[in-house]
Amino acid sequence: MKLQLYTDRMSQPSRAVLILCKASGIDFEEIKVEISKRQQLSPEFEAINPFKKLPAIVDGRFKLFESSIIICFAIPVPVRGDGSMWFNKTSFIWNSEPDICHAILIYIASAFPGVANHWYPADLTRRAKIHSVLDWHHLNLRQGAAPYILHTVLAPVLGLPSSRQAAAEAEKILTSSLSKIESIWLKGNGRYLLGSFQPSIADLSMVCEIMQLELLDEKDRDRILGPHKKVQQWIESTRNATKPHFDEVHNVLYKMKLKLSLQRSNQVEGVKESRIKTPLTSKI
Amino acid sequence: MKLQLYTDRMSQPSRAVLILCKASGIDFEEIKVEISKRQQLSPEFEAINPFKKLPAIVDGRFKLFESSIIICFAIPVPVRGDGSMWFNKTSFIWNSEPDICHAILIYIASAFPGVANHWYPADLTRRAKIHSVLDWHHLNLRQGAAPYILHTVLAPVLGLPSSRQAAAEAEKILTSSLSKIESIWLKGNGRYLLGSFQPSIADLSMVCEIMQLELLDEKDRDRILGPHKKVQQWIESTRNATKPHFDEVHNVLYKMKLKLSLQRSNQVEGVKESRIKTPLTSKI
Repeated sequence: MKLQLYTDRMSQPSRAVLILCKASGIDFEEIKVEISKRQQLSPEFEAINPFKKLPAIVDGRFKLFESSIIICFAIPVPVRGDGSMWFNKTSFIWNSEPDICHAILIYIASAFPGVANHWYPADLTRRAKIHSVLDWHHLNLRQGAAPYILHTVLAPVLGLPSSRQAAAEAEKILTSSLSKIESIWLKGNGRYLLGSFQPSIADLSMVCEIMQLELLDEKDRDRILGPHKKVQQWIESTRNATKPHFDEVHNVLYKMKLKLSLQRSNQVEGVKESRIKTPLTSKI
Repeated sequence: MKLQLYTDRMSQPSRAVLILCKASGIDFEEIKVEISKRQQLSPEFEAINPFKKLPAIVDGRFKLFESSIIICFAIPVPVRGDGSMWFNKTSFIWNSEPDICHAILIYIASAFPGVANHWYPADLTRRAKIHSVLDWHHLNLRQGAAPYILHTVLAPVLGLPSSRQAAAEAEKILTSSLSKIESIWLKGNGRYLLGSFQPSIADLSMVCEIMQLELLDEKDRDRILGPHKKVQQWIESTRNATKPHFDEVHNVLYKMKLKLSLQRSNQVEGVKESRIKTPLTSKI
């Protein structure tokens, strides 16, 4: 029986697991669980993961899943007849934030002989450093990137309540995390974390997290990522090391970026039109 | 050269690492880095851990450290001539929350042959489940317990700004986490997480986290822990499995509990005295 991956490519940890499997030539079955359709709440999926979260895997009789704190998260759902994803205020559901996939990445890298050693080195000291980075990801980068995207891109675009203060605080954590990645984790001769010359599961996990910033508008993305040239090079190195899988798996994100960008343009056009129709003098 | 542990026993992850080493008969040197004296900010310690956080270890030429987001945290410092720990509004410093020790626990359990297999089993599927629980700890129990203690015990007692809303939200996460520990992680025949008959590093890590609730007053502690009989039994089982080290390492916490309790009594007495001296009629 093939390894089964329960994933939604809109979630960054799902993408990290998929890229590792594809880059390692693992024969797997991708079972799409669409968060936008609440499929992760079904009794069938609950039997796989009692926390009802993604990603999850089944390897023979072994089930492994992730679980995290429930955070309100808005997911757009298709509302047009042609199946395209578009937004209106009634077209989304509340859901939980997708989870981090460290335990799954470690299991796959350990259990499948096809996975190259550099992803999760057998050497105990190198492995320990990777665990240390993964712990750091949980409590730093993740705590900045996820709420920042929520309070800037998703909430305002979808008409959900958002908090400028929460966005500002998340941006501080995110910016500080990106600085620490450059000054501490990317220190050394190699192109990857911990000065390595080849990527590990920590690179994959963190780069997939930062890729969520693709959903920002260009101005915000440039303000945040612009000063971090080493981070940009590192993303590019990880992309190159896993091509063509990296872009193929991230394609859903690029499409969403385009749709959000179009929506922003339409909103601006709408505001312009509204100003013409309702001149300021009409208020007097 | 002995394994060197840089710890402060007031931090829950430091205690977990110490208990594992003591219970496994590892020959180590405990180097106390007192957060209350800002010793973790010294250049000497920065050379061990650039994140200036505890715990950290040095094993020969190998350094391993934890790192987490910086959260303001109040630490009492001795202000009496006899060295006893007491509080006044100028006697504490701001510091950062202590860190989680998963990477260190995994390294010690992997690198030292004296550590029994049950702490971090060689079997890949059991190991994967332990990683899964550790991930969960980061993003659930930890996110409830740490801010709850901050906003209820430490902030009010020390006259620091606290938020009832933050405490209430943290309590929800904490209570939900305790329920999930009972309904999911403690499911099975064994006394420990994942239905095991012997404890793992995940048990140690999470029990040390919950032990911070010792600092609450009895009423609050009973309200939160009271309904969770299985959690209470599990704490007791972990204590028994690691005795006498568990209580020896937690002794600093029990002493602090006593001091906080005395301080609360003194505050109540102070209020009574003030009421006698300043009767309500004097306001008229």
